[in-house]
Amino acid sequence: MPTRTHYLWFNTKHRQEIIDITDEVAEQVRLSGVKEGMVLVAAMHISASVFVNDHESGLWHDILRWLEERIAPWEPSAYRHNETGEDNAAAHLRSLTVGHEVIVPITDGKLDFGPWQRVFYGEWDGQRKKRVIVKVMGE
Amino acid sequence: MPTRTHYLWFNTKHRQEIIDITDEVAEQVRLSGVKEGMVLVAAMHISASVFVNDHESGLWHDILRWLEERIAPWEPSAYRHNETGEDNAAAHLRSLTVGHEVIVPITDGKLDFGPWQRVFYGEWDGQRKKRVIVKVMGE
Amino acid sequence: MPTRTHYLWFNTKHRQEIIDITDEVAEQVRLSGVKEGMVLVAAMHISASVFVNDHESGLWHDILRWLEERIAPWEPSAYRHNETGEDNAAAHLRSLTVGHEVIVPITDGKLDFGPWQRVFYGEWDGQRKKRVIVKVMGE
Repeated sequence: MPTRTHYLWFNTKHRQEIIDITDEVAEQVRLSGVKEGMVLVAAMHISASVFVNDHESGLWHDILRWLEERIAPWEPSAYRHNETGEDNAAAHLRSLTVGHEVIVPITDGKLDFGPWQRVFYGEWDGQRKKRVIVKVMGE
Repeated sequence: MPTRTHYLWFNTKHRQEIIDITDEVAEQVRLSGVKEGMVLVAAMHISASVFVNDHESGLWHDILRWLEERIAPWEPSAYRHNETGEDNAAAHLRSLTVGHEVIVPITDGKLDFGPWQRVFYGEWDGQRKKRVIVKVMGE
Repeated sequence: MPTRTHYLWFNTKHRQEIIDITDEVAEQVRLSGVKEGMVLVAAMHISASVFVNDHESGLWHDILRWLEERIAPWEPSAYRHNETGEDNAAAHLRSLTVGHEVIVPITDGKLDFGPWQRVFYGEWDGQRKKRVIVKVMGE
């Protein structure tokens, strides 16, 4: 079973940011030679997400606002985790909600996505170097 | 490594609906001949979910109400995504929260589930043709 | 493709509890002999989670409070599921939010985690025997 492991690096300009990584993932699938299998795409950090959704900037804006207003407000004094000197407890909770990884099926050597599906890196506490693992497995 | 890929189609009567697809997934595992491995079950749309939970209609009602009242109210005017002409931004956020896919382990040729686990398709913006991929991998 | 399947059992003292299971998962990877692949870690119950995050007790406290106050209050009378005689509908919704499983990549025979990543069992309705499946796959 061929496997291929690759790491994508990010250092976002903004503290929260959503980045389309579909082309990078598809390129790793191509390089792996895998025709049938899957690719695991996982944030290697506990304050970030990887998710599948829509390439539409209005929606990205909605997601960032929804995480802040409804899911987990940043509000550093509200969390016990921040007594450790951090201020990013909310980023952890956002990672738990949206998830930190996806598995994308590979069929005929391609990402087997529906028409609108794309894979994204969700940075919830950036402005520093962070990583995503891309591991292709199959035959 | 044998793999088997199958697509399930849905066209729900209601715009939001929860459908038990365990039997269809189990049938694909049987047809694959895989004894040890796993099956990926993933929505091919960005306004739907696949999840594992309980076959209990009261709970399905609770899930739909919880998504509307607590997680992401439908309220079309609240989202920038809907300025594109859509009204379904809330369905995207529900898909992000519940997730769009699961991996079910296969042991001795069967779905290796606990006593109450079942796999569901969660339609958050239906009344049109949509798809789920079932990909079995293993040996 | 070697696979290895193991079950971890829990019977928590408290009804809600977060338990670091990284060492148990890493031990199963070691015993499997798999050098390149992945390990699926999945709750076998519909009122529990498996997730990747931080080994920090302040954060665990924040997670439990956030699930109660913001995601799904326990409040038994608020849910139709509880008319079946249960009182744990909120535990189901927490499982849906945080997810019930993760896939961890294996590279060079080790869990390929970032520096702070650990894997946890999240018990949302415990004080009884419950299980997690650990299935290692790869080569």
